Amino acid sequence: MSIAAGQVRNILFIMCDQLRWDYLSCYGHPHLKTPNIDALAARGVRFTRAYVQSPVCGSSRMSFYTGRYVHSHGATGNDIPLKVGEITLGDYLRPLGVRAALVGKTHMHADIEGMERLGIDPDSIIGVRVSECGFDPYERDDGLHAVGPAGRYDPKPPPRYNSYLRDKGYSGDNPWHDWANAAVGEGNALASGWAMRHARKPARVKEEDSETPYMTRRAIDFMTEAGDTPWCLHLSYIKPHWPYIAPAPYNNMYSASDVVPIVRSEEERHDPHPIFAASMGKNVSNVFSREEVREEVIPVYMGLIKQIDDQLGLLFRFMGERGLLDNTLIVFTSDHGDYLGDHWMGEKDFFHEPSVRIPLIIADPSSTADATRGSVDDHLVQGIDLVPTFLEAYGSDPALQCHRLEGRSLMPLLRGEQPTDWPEFVVSEYDYSNLPVAMKPGFGPSRARMFMIADRRWKYIHVVGYRPMLFDLETDPNEFRDLGADPAYEAERQRMAGALAQWGLRLSQRATMSDAQMLAKRGKAMQRGILIGVWDENDIPAELWSRYLGDPE
Amino acid sequence: MSIAAGQVRNILFIMCDQLRWDYLSCYGHPHLKTPNIDALAARGVRFTRAYVQSPVCGSSRMSFYTGRYVHSHGATGNDIPLKVGEITLGDYLRPLGVRAALVGKTHMHADIEGMERLGIDPDSIIGVRVSECGFDPYERDDGLHAVGPAGRYDPKPPPRYNSYLRDKGYSGDNPWHDWANAAVGEGNALASGWAMRHARKPARVKEEDSETPYMTRRAIDFMTEAGDTPWCLHLSYIKPHWPYIAPAPYNNMYSASDVVPIVRSEEERHDPHPIFAASMGKNVSNVFSREEVREEVIPVYMGLIKQIDDQLGLLFRFMGERGLLDNTLIVFTSDHGDYLGDHWMGEKDFFHEPSVRIPLIIADPSSTADATRGSVDDHLVQGIDLVPTFLEAYGSDPALQCHRLEGRSLMPLLRGEQPTDWPEFVVSEYDYSNLPVAMKPGFGPSRARMFMIADRRWKYIHVVGYRPMLFDLETDPNEFRDLGADPAYEAERQRMAGALAQWGLRLSQRATMSDAQMLAKRGKAMQRGILIGVWDENDIPAELWSRYLGDPE
Repeated sequence: MSIAAGQVRNILFIMCDQLRWDYLSCYGHPHLKTPNIDALAARGVRFTRAYVQSPVCGSSRMSFYTGRYVHSHGATGNDIPLKVGEITLGDYLRPLGVRAALVGKTHMHADIEGMERLGIDPDSIIGVRVSECGFDPYERDDGLHAVGPAGRYDPKPPPRYNSYLRDKGYSGDNPWHDWANAAVGEGNALASGWAMRHARKPARVKEEDSETPYMTRRAIDFMTEAGDTPWCLHLSYIKPHWPYIAPAPYNNMYSASDVVPIVRSEEERHDPHPIFAASMGKNVSNVFSREEVREEVIPVYMGLIKQIDDQLGLLFRFMGERGLLDNTLIVFTSDHGDYLGDHWMGEKDFFHEPSVRIPLIIADPSSTADATRGSVDDHLVQGIDLVPTFLEAYGSDPALQCHRLEGRSLMPLLRGEQPTDWPEFVVSEYDYSNLPVAMKPGFGPSRARMFMIADRRWKYIHVVGYRPMLFDLETDPNEFRDLGADPAYEAERQRMAGALAQWGLRLSQRATMSDAQMLAKRGKAMQRGILIGVWDENDIPAELWSRYLGDPE
Repeated sequence: MSIAAGQVRNILFIMCDQLRWDYLSCYGHPHLKTPNIDALAARGVRFTRAYVQSPVCGSSRMSFYTGRYVHSHGATGNDIPLKVGEITLGDYLRPLGVRAALVGKTHMHADIEGMERLGIDPDSIIGVRVSECGFDPYERDDGLHAVGPAGRYDPKPPPRYNSYLRDKGYSGDNPWHDWANAAVGEGNALASGWAMRHARKPARVKEEDSETPYMTRRAIDFMTEAGDTPWCLHLSYIKPHWPYIAPAPYNNMYSASDVVPIVRSEEERHDPHPIFAASMGKNVSNVFSREEVREEVIPVYMGLIKQIDDQLGLLFRFMGERGLLDNTLIVFTSDHGDYLGDHWMGEKDFFHEPSVRIPLIIADPSSTADATRGSVDDHLVQGIDLVPTFLEAYGSDPALQCHRLEGRSLMPLLRGEQPTDWPEFVVSEYDYSNLPVAMKPGFGPSRARMFMIADRRWKYIHVVGYRPMLFDLETDPNEFRDLGADPAYEAERQRMAGALAQWGLRLSQRATMSDAQMLAKRGKAMQRGILIGVWDENDIPAELWSRYLGDPE
């Protein structure tokens, strides 16, 4: 493939859901081969120290889409609506003449109350964008079409995907579940993918009709129809997120012998931090601590990733044929990881590396990025860095938005520069309101908060109302030894606590005026007649008095 | 006057501008007699330790009107627009059936860019309210109709007050300046109130046509026309804010002998904190450090306060005649103080008591407040406490808004309760971007920030990038000795810095979901079919499987 010189025209922003940083062959997985993603890394830069702003879908994504910490945008959990006034990726790109479009998941909940207060019709163009992080929804599908005794989980209308499946002859009210996320079980009964013992059974749907190929085709449809307007397409796969179930052949492509050993230590269960203990005590943590579960689920988790890699191969081939690889900046990343039993944990929802660290690969077609192709970058980078990166890719100075955007453009790193002032810390946050411990009397959701601040060596976790946790990633890369109560590390804790305190006091809400605007208006009040501290008319230049002096009429 | 039992029907929220806490006779001023305000205090509670969220008009007011810290609402300076999504007093009161109306100043700058982004017409009812902190502007007048070589200071249309003056025969383009804020000077020339040497000359306007009586009459007009809907009227006087000039007889009511001694010490100029030094070095500080300036200006500052007191006497008499004193909760306060030369300073813009402390009097007509009438309350209270107070006055539980409101309802104090969990700290903030020191290369407005956190004894000032300041209000009530670099006070500084760090990490932006809503939805995902960490169908109740199991079709 030849990389054309010149500016970025399009951006393909690919996000997987719940993909750990280390489940790709380019990130060192010994058995899972992902050649198409590896090839993307060979064309671009692979970041080894990329973190999310929260180890949970919605909060992390709102940070990706706003370029702001969770503490700033306020969507602290999966179903917390993003405030109507928050400015999002699409808002930043549209003035540059770029169409921001969505295929797949955002996990955005619209601030219906806020829209009503401001008279914004949710069905208007603006209302839809406000409800989709600024994206024009080409194919929105949050990928969780669950239904239970209290009704559907997702309040939005059933997805186009369900209609597609029905048109293809897949029957029932919810073919998303009954075909794409269920297998055939004992006695020909439906084996729901929600029961993980069925994970390795093949989903009933044909592979080509499963979610990942469907969304890939929708991305191709979008690119085919897009016309001449530059676009930023967010292709946001639900997989390898649960339900852990895959269509043939991906259900059966890996086996228990391909599962890498669990990363955990008895040391972690000796006098653990109370909130870590509560997290290890969750049902999902107990379930994933069982080897039989890992051996059934992880091969399918790997298969779902392999399917994404195969689909990206098709997508990249299509893009190459259309010449789109020459002018499209491609990002591949994930919204958070998956413990998969490591650290006695299931799911995400805490700050160990399997949960909070993500893969991040960026391939910039510009000639300015030629020097870094195939390279590995170990700077500390974060989800909030993408919006400023995209702005700079389009030639817009992200510094003009530094009163809103809290990340840092990665473009200098893609050009092989070595900035001397690169941020020393990354910050991630989590609201554990859903843990039983947060439901104790007098506790309340406002207190159920944790902050992680990490530099290149130390990871410090501040748990409001409790002692902190501390890990030395250099001597203890597996994060087995919590030094949060060890007197020998008081100085490190003080240093990290100080950095977090400074972060907490950062300027994050002056979103209506940039630093440059602040500087530009300095002294303007005097030119507009505000004359403070003047004793005598002779104290200030005569022209400032022009409208004030003279004879009374 | 008889106080009727029962619920509050109306709220009269009176704010002066730049009125120091100690320039009222009920707060101990030896020469300035304010019998009408004193009488209000005799009917209510007088708070002796009330602080503003910022010692500058706009930021302080946005905190009063949103019930949120400056760090939360982001309007860090006078002309920083309040973000379109911020929820304001009017937004809170309207659903309770209360009309929130404005007579006078808010110093609000509308977020025009945000309104445009969200498709909100600034001239629509919602747009006007968004532009006025949620108030319906009955008579908006920010009171600064300055004009200079670069045009008018206030971007809004000229005020109704100017038309009023013209209708009364006061001539010229800007009778606000030429008559209400100017005197007759040497050789019959116009003596602008902007030059303080003219302060004690009588303004050219007749007293009855000056700003304070005009706004008082507009408040009476409002009450006369208001009808049966409960109202919250924000009567927001521009005075005693500069230009320091008053109509006869108020220009000449006090003299140099009525001016209380300046509060300053040479100790303050010995190795001062760099940012305090820069503040003392401002022109307005130098000017107010001269006794001739104080002797000319302070008598008029006192006269302007006396005029407000006289006008409030008329207003309260009118309200009494209409029976409104029986059902109207009355608040009297200010948006910040005025150094008037104390601490070698002019204006406000720093954290000494003359700047950051305000008068606050609340008279609640309800019988539940009878026990506290005429009492003095020394709890630490803040500007952000008023919105929750108003909500509780109308019978609405402010705890339901605790995800947005950061203050504390004062109603328990008005009822004479002694809450055991009253906040131990108040916090104020200031953005000193306008100081020359903030214009040095590499500095930038984002860094030019200071935070004050004070408890009942200690006042700690964190200046980003500098050493802190510390005052012991118990042993040094005049705040002459900055202990910010004294090794003997390291423990106090650590304690206060820790409290500020905790404050910085507070939850302030999850404005779209209350704690109660968070609790109510707990476990609901499972009832809507999200089944996480399930190995076997037998692991969870059968009804949760109702939509998932059964025979494949």
